[in-house]
Amino acid sequence: QNSLLSATGTTIFTIMSALALEHGAINLGQGFPDYDGPEDVIEAAAAALKDGRNQYPPLTGVPELRQAVSAHNRRFYGIEADPNAEVVVTSGATEAITACLMAVLNPGDECVLIEPLYDTYLPVVKLLGAVPKLVRLSPPKWELPRAELAAAFGPKTKAILFNTPMNPTGKVFTAAELAFIADLIAKHDCYAICDEVYEHLTFDGWKHIPLMTLPGMRERCMRIGSAGKTFSLTGWKVGYITCDRSLAPNVAKAHQNLTFTTAPNLQRGVAVGLMKDDDYFAGLSSGLQARRDRLAKGLAEIGFGVLPTQGSYFITTDFRPLGFNGDDVAFCRALTEEAKVTAIPVTAFYASADAPSHYARFAFCKGEAVIDEALARMRNWV
Amino acid sequence: QNSLLSATGTTIFTIMSALALEHGAINLGQGFPDYDGPEDVIEAAAAALKDGRNQYPPLTGVPELRQAVSAHNRRFYGIEADPNAEVVVTSGATEAITACLMAVLNPGDECVLIEPLYDTYLPVVKLLGAVPKLVRLSPPKWELPRAELAAAFGPKTKAILFNTPMNPTGKVFTAAELAFIADLIAKHDCYAICDEVYEHLTFDGWKHIPLMTLPGMRERCMRIGSAGKTFSLTGWKVGYITCDRSLAPNVAKAHQNLTFTTAPNLQRGVAVGLMKDDDYFAGLSSGLQARRDRLAKGLAEIGFGVLPTQGSYFITTDFRPLGFNGDDVAFCRALTEEAKVTAIPVTAFYASADAPSHYARFAFCKGEAVIDEALARMRNWV
Ligand SMILES: CSCCC(=O)C(=O)O
Ligand SMILES: CSCCC(=O)C(=O)O
Repeated sequence: QNSLLSATGTTIFTIMSALALEHGAINLGQGFPDYDGPEDVIEAAAAALKDGRNQYPPLTGVPELRQAVSAHNRRFYGIEADPNAEVVVTSGATEAITACLMAVLNPGDECVLIEPLYDTYLPVVKLLGAVPKLVRLSPPKWELPRAELAAAFGPKTKAILFNTPMNPTGKVFTAAELAFIADLIAKHDCYAICDEVYEHLTFDGWKHIPLMTLPGMRERCMRIGSAGKTFSLTGWKVGYITCDRSLAPNVAKAHQNLTFTTAPNLQRGVAVGLMKDDDYFAGLSSGLQARRDRLAKGLAEIGFGVLPTQGSYFITTDFRPLGFNGDDVAFCRALTEEAKVTAIPVTAFYASADAPSHYARFAFCKGEAVIDEALARMRNWV
Repeated sequence: QNSLLSATGTTIFTIMSALALEHGAINLGQGFPDYDGPEDVIEAAAAALKDGRNQYPPLTGVPELRQAVSAHNRRFYGIEADPNAEVVVTSGATEAITACLMAVLNPGDECVLIEPLYDTYLPVVKLLGAVPKLVRLSPPKWELPRAELAAAFGPKTKAILFNTPMNPTGKVFTAAELAFIADLIAKHDCYAICDEVYEHLTFDGWKHIPLMTLPGMRERCMRIGSAGKTFSLTGWKVGYITCDRSLAPNVAKAHQNLTFTTAPNLQRGVAVGLMKDDDYFAGLSSGLQARRDRLAKGLAEIGFGVLPTQGSYFITTDFRPLGFNGDDVAFCRALTEEAKVTAIPVTAFYASADAPSHYARFAFCKGEAVIDEALARMRNWV
């Protein structure tokens, strides 16, 4: 059997969700809302099952969704992308990331990754025979270590893959940081795979900036969005890639080998979603900001060190102030088993054992009553 | 960019479907029905969008579908498979094939493939750094060349991937052929990836036999089914893998890196489908057999050499008796542009240029009026 996969554990999200279930714990681990997505989007997907378009849609997506992705790019970021040649719909952002890596990497190529990172990045780079070059952000401020990042680029660098707004840190990359990254990309003549699934989940006036909008970056970036995050429908697994027409053919061919196409009715539902008015997108972020505030305040009152969150579904906490004597895995296990609240150990987002091990990640994309009950349980426990 | 993908053309199915559209041709190319799937399955999927289960389902699939896959295995083949440890749901059979290859192959491993083959097999094996060993069936009888197959296995063989009932040949592997393959697998201590998406589409009393049911094969086979083919809903992209509990963890980890999960509402619809009564499955094959007969008879009357089809959606034809002066690509192009009927050139299912080039594949999963009109157009053309 494949040795890389054999050496990998089951994903932490599955492990912790199963543990939560076993112990009747409130699951603030895996990042999914406990409320449903917009009714009109769901209705559109249900109606689309019944008008006879249940066979293979085009490889790159139904025209309605490619057009909606293109319009969404223009409306929010001023990005012009040809819906017929620069958009590829995928079966979720996970597939999109794998397809983009597959489209550009050759065995032996180097790919720069930024830790902490989502748990499919590293195995996929390795499975493709490419060489990961890891650069680490330093908590608690998660600033980009510029010299180290520059040193990670070299003659063999083919791509950088990173996530902004960022899971699990809640960091939103600044214009200055993105400009620094763009310079490196241009200088080393390589590509960027931009996991921007939390693009609409930013707070306190922070705005997401696609790297693609920076000078010289339009042709080099593969920008990934996700209906799961943008419409609170994480199970639908509809993602979309925007990239230059010189990149899209290889991205589409990778997609062909991974899934070929994505269910047309869900694509048509998502197309309705992307055309929603500005109030929807403003309400999405303000609603989540209120949930973030509620959870952050409660966690701080309990005694956690609460790191700032500028975007995403997640708050990172330092549990050392609680006096817990053990690492993050032990903490999250104890919290699940004893307090009946589940969080994710942040070491799961690092490749090696020397990762900071005093952080636990909480998801706040949950109902107010659920957040309050989780806080009450943790208050009782400490 | 990735050189393997850059060197690959767009899939023939997309090319020919686009050409069909451009020329107003009847599309008997890409294998999808022009009729809809069962109403109760579609209704179940629509209803499942509206009861609040739109977030990430479990990595290996919703319990309902894993149980239905397990029950389906028992009912049709006497295969016992634990729904909690031996079934993995994927976003279509294409993903399932890629996940199974990824689960077992290491770079440098050899993988036996049987030509003619589906167009993702070879690129995926190569993208994983493994070495394909191709064995060719000989038309018009498509018999297994036993000596050549045995010679393709060696100390580096990790797996064989093959398709029965088979696209594009319409061949159903016999018990004797499967026993020969099983012996080789046992002798070389390797795995089989069994693409059985056409399992219910067999004719004239031919019955599909899963390799997994042969002695010694239960632990070595990854058996792949597809809701697209079994319920005439090719766009849904719901596939399922049945395999031993020793293989399922790596298959699930591959799936995690490819798509992570599959839309829960479509999974729940498919679960309803797999529990349908025997009449449904009998009607599916008898209905297709009538379509096959209609198309085969008409093609023979026009003058095509019609190869027998025991299963699948497809008839392979020899167009030399028509006196056409050119290869299969030229034939399919002329047929589309002049006769306004689209077929697929069979060389698209071969890796090298020395493939037989006088065959065109027609899909018969179409309405009677469509088949008749296609036949009338071709009659006029010749
Ligand atoms: C695809 S499961 C993980 C969901 C998620 O994005 C997270 O919890 O980090
Ligand atoms: C996934 S597109 C190809 C459909 C098919 O199985 C075929 O036409 O061979």
